[in-house]
Amino acid sequence: MAKEKKLVEAITSMEEDFAQWYTDVVKKAELVDYASVKGCMVIKPAGYAIWENIQKELDRRFKETGVENVYMPLFIPESLLEKEKDHVEGFAPEVAWVTHGGLEPLQERLCVRPTSETLFCDFYARDIQSHRDLPKLYNQWCSVVRWEKTTRPFLRSREFLWQEGHTAHATAEEAEERTIQMLNLYADFCEEVLAMPVIRGRKTDKEKFAGAEATYTIEALMHDGKALQSGTSHNFGDGFAKAFGIQYANKDNKLEYVHQTSWGMTTRLIGAIIMVHGDDSGLVLPPRIAPTQVMIIPIQQKKEGVLDKAYEIRDVLSNFRTKVDDSDKSPGWKFSEAEMRGIPVRIEIGPKDIEAGQAVIVRRDTREKQVVALSELVEKVSATLDKMQSDMLERARAHRDAHTYEVTDFEAFKDTIEHKPGFVKAMWCGDEACENMIKEVTGATSRCMPFAQEHLSDTCVCCGKPAKSMVYWGKAY
Amino acid sequence: MAKEKKLVEAITSMEEDFAQWYTDVVKKAELVDYASVKGCMVIKPAGYAIWENIQKELDRRFKETGVENVYMPLFIPESLLEKEKDHVEGFAPEVAWVTHGGLEPLQERLCVRPTSETLFCDFYARDIQSHRDLPKLYNQWCSVVRWEKTTRPFLRSREFLWQEGHTAHATAEEAEERTIQMLNLYADFCEEVLAMPVIRGRKTDKEKFAGAEATYTIEALMHDGKALQSGTSHNFGDGFAKAFGIQYANKDNKLEYVHQTSWGMTTRLIGAIIMVHGDDSGLVLPPRIAPTQVMIIPIQQKKEGVLDKAYEIRDVLSNFRTKVDDSDKSPGWKFSEAEMRGIPVRIEIGPKDIEAGQAVIVRRDTREKQVVALSELVEKVSATLDKMQSDMLERARAHRDAHTYEVTDFEAFKDTIEHKPGFVKAMWCGDEACENMIKEVTGATSRCMPFAQEHLSDTCVCCGKPAKSMVYWGKAY
Repeated sequence: MAKEKKLVEAITSMEEDFAQWYTDVVKKAELVDYASVKGCMVIKPAGYAIWENIQKELDRRFKETGVENVYMPLFIPESLLEKEKDHVEGFAPEVAWVTHGGLEPLQERLCVRPTSETLFCDFYARDIQSHRDLPKLYNQWCSVVRWEKTTRPFLRSREFLWQEGHTAHATAEEAEERTIQMLNLYADFCEEVLAMPVIRGRKTDKEKFAGAEATYTIEALMHDGKALQSGTSHNFGDGFAKAFGIQYANKDNKLEYVHQTSWGMTTRLIGAIIMVHGDDSGLVLPPRIAPTQVMIIPIQQKKEGVLDKAYEIRDVLSNFRTKVDDSDKSPGWKFSEAEMRGIPVRIEIGPKDIEAGQAVIVRRDTREKQVVALSELVEKVSATLDKMQSDMLERARAHRDAHTYEVTDFEAFKDTIEHKPGFVKAMWCGDEACENMIKEVTGATSRCMPFAQEHLSDTCVCCGKPAKSMVYWGKAY
Repeated sequence: MAKEKKLVEAITSMEEDFAQWYTDVVKKAELVDYASVKGCMVIKPAGYAIWENIQKELDRRFKETGVENVYMPLFIPESLLEKEKDHVEGFAPEVAWVTHGGLEPLQERLCVRPTSETLFCDFYARDIQSHRDLPKLYNQWCSVVRWEKTTRPFLRSREFLWQEGHTAHATAEEAEERTIQMLNLYADFCEEVLAMPVIRGRKTDKEKFAGAEATYTIEALMHDGKALQSGTSHNFGDGFAKAFGIQYANKDNKLEYVHQTSWGMTTRLIGAIIMVHGDDSGLVLPPRIAPTQVMIIPIQQKKEGVLDKAYEIRDVLSNFRTKVDDSDKSPGWKFSEAEMRGIPVRIEIGPKDIEAGQAVIVRRDTREKQVVALSELVEKVSATLDKMQSDMLERARAHRDAHTYEVTDFEAFKDTIEHKPGFVKAMWCGDEACENMIKEVTGATSRCMPFAQEHLSDTCVCCGKPAKSMVYWGKAY
């Protein structure tokens, strides 16, 4: 038991220090390792396998809406980055610059892409001529670089993996429709696959993407009551089209500017999964995204027939992502390891179980144990995984709702942010000065103006002037 | 017909100018576009979809051998790149250097990875402690950068996509076994999926990878008689392990150095597919890798029932990657386009066919036409795709064999290289001086020492001293 103890003791408890708990889980569940370049990460097999499942599921959903994948270059010439003024202002302070190729200095500096709007625009300006070329519905999977000062694995790193969709449309309406469609796709994915409820809404102008007309976002609440922006979808209108000269001949053969969107999700989602579902024994993975859904752990595996039975069960469960832990560690150690790694279901099988024609199923989230006849194993495992998936979503939703507060005056706002970590819903006049004031005094930022608006009072929580919309506020990652 | 003519006329014929033909196909089949950064490429949907199929199939084969995917950072600190002397000498002249992060100069320059041995070694040195940690069988899918002077889409570009596998083993034998295993996996993939026969062999010391003990390669012959290195697998012995201090405690608790391998395949394979199978009407894709395997082209599609029938056939053929071209172009234009894009099978269906309960199947490679009863369509399409796949491999093999020449004296060597594009098989003494001489005089390089050795004569084709091995020589991309 000494070893089991050690593995669990290695994690700080969530209550004691949430940030340290996060760091411990990321390390002990073997998701990442620190890299030799500060602020970058090595994504280890257990972490990358989660990303592969995210990719597979998102990519399938994108393609169902007509999206095609492409690949744009890693580098952006400085002059290209500078073509759209808001965009370059937003990104220039945090890009990495390539100045030498081989032994020669470059004639023009190249930035390592922090995002690829400018590259897509440069390409679209050549590739789009006629209304027949529209819409363009392109996406790419790649890594991007932003030279952040403070970094944390998955949440904020100098390099991260993501997908970036970039579309071009004939009309403003079509572009807006696509922007919202992708936001809803993201939200559905988070809820259905990651068991993570999100608030869908629009960013204020202060918080929108550099160069966008409108930014939409999905915001999730982490276990510690902080918000995490989990996906964004931007409508650029024709701003980039004008800066880059992207025009098409309409049906009357007149030149018009295209309307564009972009939308992205990143490896940050892995951080969200950890912080929404994890507990003091480590990671808890929603079954639909877990690289291993079922871990079979043989008891007294050296006894004749035990390992064979374990492999037999694995083959019976081949419809699930099932593994046997046949290493020479103790069963207790294997239990702890499977828990730390967040594997949804473990199956214990030993000589006595085999004799009785049964196995023990243990759910990772509730630790509920069921003794199950081997003949019923497939359906019981299937039902357990389904139940766990829906329970995890409901639990996360209940946690979020219990940590969402309505306030109508500034004193209550300050008090809530200070003492009750979570979302604060409050009315806002639409003035950036109030956003700045709220941030300065409370540390909270506007997370979004939700699509599901509510009327909490007539006046702005900050200045008392007439309110324009209800906003979710919170401290954020 | 004017339009059809235009599409085909847009391509230079292979005989006339092979290089221009290649450029035309790459552009007209919409595989790539040129990027704003010289030597980089925009991979368009038709090109990227081929890469996705390559990835899917290779990744599946890797995982079957126990390989796991990871992700290493994009950047390598200069001091890390310099740790293995041969390696840095090989790569330093062609790397891109990042010198600024945001507005600040960096304390140490970072190179954009040209390959990731040094990053994997840095990680392994921390991650490997015991014999229980071995083997490590890691791979990553990413892009790499090499600042080449002359570039061509897919074949040689400043940035390209690839996979790089990096493994660490307890013994030299195991490392050698893995090196050969992956080379054979590559060769089987090329032959089974890309219908591209390859020569499996070992590189001479002059041609091996910077830092490797041994480099194995697969070499394919392009339609113009030039060789293309299509995949490589390297055995590093314990050279990197010593430079980076990667040691493990063996079963007797003694420290030993690991033995390492790496192996990679790139988007260059798309260039190989073009140059092995293409013809004067454009691309010809092997059915197993084709993003669209069957294109249904309705004839007189405005007549009632024609388009409905086309969609019905598409649904019947849902086991294949099938599309309907229902655009408003003429059938002849659609034929040319499907040919240009290399779609293996097209199905023509018009009012007369519908009346007769039949359709016309046309194979892309031979242009063979079959009139087929609609009730037999699934099996006929399936048989046609299978036959096309195997015929393409046989045709490529016959072409290669017809352009492989044996020579035993230097005059014949020079004459063959000058007048008969293809592989030259000739004996070699093992001396680099002869390799250099051959290159200088004929322009041909040693492609590999094939596993399947033959005894053509007793003496080196260049110097006349006793021969050590038979070598494939050729001009190469």
